[in-house]
Amino acid sequence: MDVLVEIITIGDEILYGQIVDTNSQWMSAEMDKVGLRTIRKTTVADREEDILTAFKEAESRAEVILITGGLGPTNDDLTKPCLARYFDCDMAMHEQAFKDIGEMFKKRGYEFTERNQQQAVLPTCCTYVPNRLGSAPGMRFEREGKLFYSMPGVPFEMKSLMSELIIPQILEHFHPPVIHHRLIKTAGIGESWLADQIKDWETALPDHIKLAYLPSFGQVRLRLTASGKSLGALQTETQEQIDQVVPLIHKHVYGFDEDILESAIGNLCKEQGKTMATAESCTGGLVSHRLTSIPGSSAYFQGAVVAYANEVKMQELGVKEATLRAHGAVSEETVTEMAEGIRKKLGTSIGIATSGIAGPDGGTPAKPVGTIWIACADEAGTRTRLLTLARDRKINVEYTVMAALFMAWQSLSKSAG
Amino acid sequence: MDVLVEIITIGDEILYGQIVDTNSQWMSAEMDKVGLRTIRKTTVADREEDILTAFKEAESRAEVILITGGLGPTNDDLTKPCLARYFDCDMAMHEQAFKDIGEMFKKRGYEFTERNQQQAVLPTCCTYVPNRLGSAPGMRFEREGKLFYSMPGVPFEMKSLMSELIIPQILEHFHPPVIHHRLIKTAGIGESWLADQIKDWETALPDHIKLAYLPSFGQVRLRLTASGKSLGALQTETQEQIDQVVPLIHKHVYGFDEDILESAIGNLCKEQGKTMATAESCTGGLVSHRLTSIPGSSAYFQGAVVAYANEVKMQELGVKEATLRAHGAVSEETVTEMAEGIRKKLGTSIGIATSGIAGPDGGTPAKPVGTIWIACADEAGTRTRLLTLARDRKINVEYTVMAALFMAWQSLSKSAG
Repeated sequence: MDVLVEIITIGDEILYGQIVDTNSQWMSAEMDKVGLRTIRKTTVADREEDILTAFKEAESRAEVILITGGLGPTNDDLTKPCLARYFDCDMAMHEQAFKDIGEMFKKRGYEFTERNQQQAVLPTCCTYVPNRLGSAPGMRFEREGKLFYSMPGVPFEMKSLMSELIIPQILEHFHPPVIHHRLIKTAGIGESWLADQIKDWETALPDHIKLAYLPSFGQVRLRLTASGKSLGALQTETQEQIDQVVPLIHKHVYGFDEDILESAIGNLCKEQGKTMATAESCTGGLVSHRLTSIPGSSAYFQGAVVAYANEVKMQELGVKEATLRAHGAVSEETVTEMAEGIRKKLGTSIGIATSGIAGPDGGTPAKPVGTIWIACADEAGTRTRLLTLARDRKINVEYTVMAALFMAWQSLSKSAG
Repeated sequence: MDVLVEIITIGDEILYGQIVDTNSQWMSAEMDKVGLRTIRKTTVADREEDILTAFKEAESRAEVILITGGLGPTNDDLTKPCLARYFDCDMAMHEQAFKDIGEMFKKRGYEFTERNQQQAVLPTCCTYVPNRLGSAPGMRFEREGKLFYSMPGVPFEMKSLMSELIIPQILEHFHPPVIHHRLIKTAGIGESWLADQIKDWETALPDHIKLAYLPSFGQVRLRLTASGKSLGALQTETQEQIDQVVPLIHKHVYGFDEDILESAIGNLCKEQGKTMATAESCTGGLVSHRLTSIPGSSAYFQGAVVAYANEVKMQELGVKEATLRAHGAVSEETVTEMAEGIRKKLGTSIGIATSGIAGPDGGTPAKPVGTIWIACADEAGTRTRLLTLARDRKINVEYTVMAALFMAWQSLSKSAG
């Protein structure tokens, strides 16, 4: 029997579309890791009636109800009074919470105002779940074996509460069955083409192993989900399936599970003792930022030049004035000189460059918005690729970054043999 | 009477936490703009029973039900058969859809495979909503005056369908009442302190104008929501409230509504004829990327040097070896030389620099993870700021970018008087 989880997010700001709810994604991923199954996510308004209905519906379907939001110090936050009403109890100052929050304010050198003191007032029927990173406490409620947890909506506070206290408590309370996921990470191939290449393998999968395609920005992740009793057996079986399918698509498989293209590149650089640098125009530094988002990337990433202005392309990257005049900044010739220029300037094994018209302005009939050149210079020479995208600025830039990273990966994986 | 909207997202990948659902945020923001009220967002699994229950619950509460996901060409997609069952009709090849999808494949030079042809099979009781950007058609269902729309989960396809076809159809069908939102954008001040500074004004707000605090990464957005009959009257009233509150917090108000710190900086640069450049270590190019995410930023943004390696700090930014030796890369002295170095190198009005220990490794007792220096060099000199953050790498970088952008804004808004 699966332990079922529902996630309730409270807040007008989410229903008005003014913020993206990233909390529920993180929470459900954590639930999944420990074998609990999230069956629904619900977002409701800062309205008592809607909040109470959501609690009731969730309690009727799930064993664990995770609630975020509506716990701030300002007047639009309703979660605590709703929980008190739902569990039919009063609100009162919680002594330990008052002490903890007061100490936090003292430590930070802030005044412990009346408004902040109110954050220690909790429903009397809850168990206090201390939040060491913020002033809104967590709360636990238990009824007929089901658990409700209320947490603040601030992501790092919620994450710390979940990891350190709530997940261990849930696991102690239930004893979840075994689910095992594996992800195969691919780039540079579309969903349908991938599906056609592996269809015989997919058809032959046993019933307890399911496959899903998760596409995004030129990448497709293949997710294998196995369920059963023994983690060891599931691990062996999914690995056997992976060993069968990877040879069919090996030119596109850059990693597994938590791997991202940036970390795959980093690992290959470290294995081969290689270094990298980027010269970016339309991506404005995002390729560099993505590469440096990997802890320890300073071991192989040397730096970048963002050459937005043509003068910077010439002065810093050695792009020739004649090249810019003859072919323009968005051209195979310019992007080649940029990639070779940064590789030479910073003395790296690989130089990656981007130059294009991200939009919405700057397009011409010959070079419409979405015309983007990328280049990868390495010891074997310089390869280029023309992207013809046609969407908004942000999507063009995201796709370009992915394509540039894939070129770097191809360069490194070729050397790896 | 408000027209009520519910958004249903279908997909195991969201419940497993493997992707973030950004579609529902965008959809509810668009609903809000046209005065429709999203009362609930629900995410359910790729399971027929769960999908049908979600349809039924939503139909009992809302007038418009927007559904995304589960329409891909692979075998885990269930939305179409569920809709056919829910509205009690068969599925059949839709002639126009078949023609449209076939033409799209032809135009792209791709083979129109059996798998892709299946995408033109639709429930016979739906109205076909053509998707000009992808191979999964949109669908409209109407029952007792309520509207259901099913769309693909690919964000740019969904957005194009919504903007071009679905929203106009909804507005034609209903005649929504007037809601008017304004946002006041602040930076460099916390939620509680802000609330204390404006509490008298907040208490005096009329009943039909509501205030909410939306905090994120060192910024707080104040949202005013007014409801009534006349848009003109609501616009005047909210503007009057804004004119009252802004003087109380003017050192922190960088803009309104769609403004972001990056665009506020861009506007001030353009007004004052100023230019900018960045020299980045721990942010790895993200300040540059954010500044260049603004269309037309090439008018004032010259470029950046990402100096991850110390050699690059010396060679490209003129940081002295003695400075690095005496104070280290993460120091007020180094970040000052970086900001002044990039300003001089690219000849800009303003130079912004970052250098810090983003984590998770690299901390020392004297300089723990989260120790980050930022600097802003302009004609008046160089200001620096020490951030002592203590969280994960990603959050440290995000917060640093925000603080660096706020320094640039302060420099520009001071000159603006």
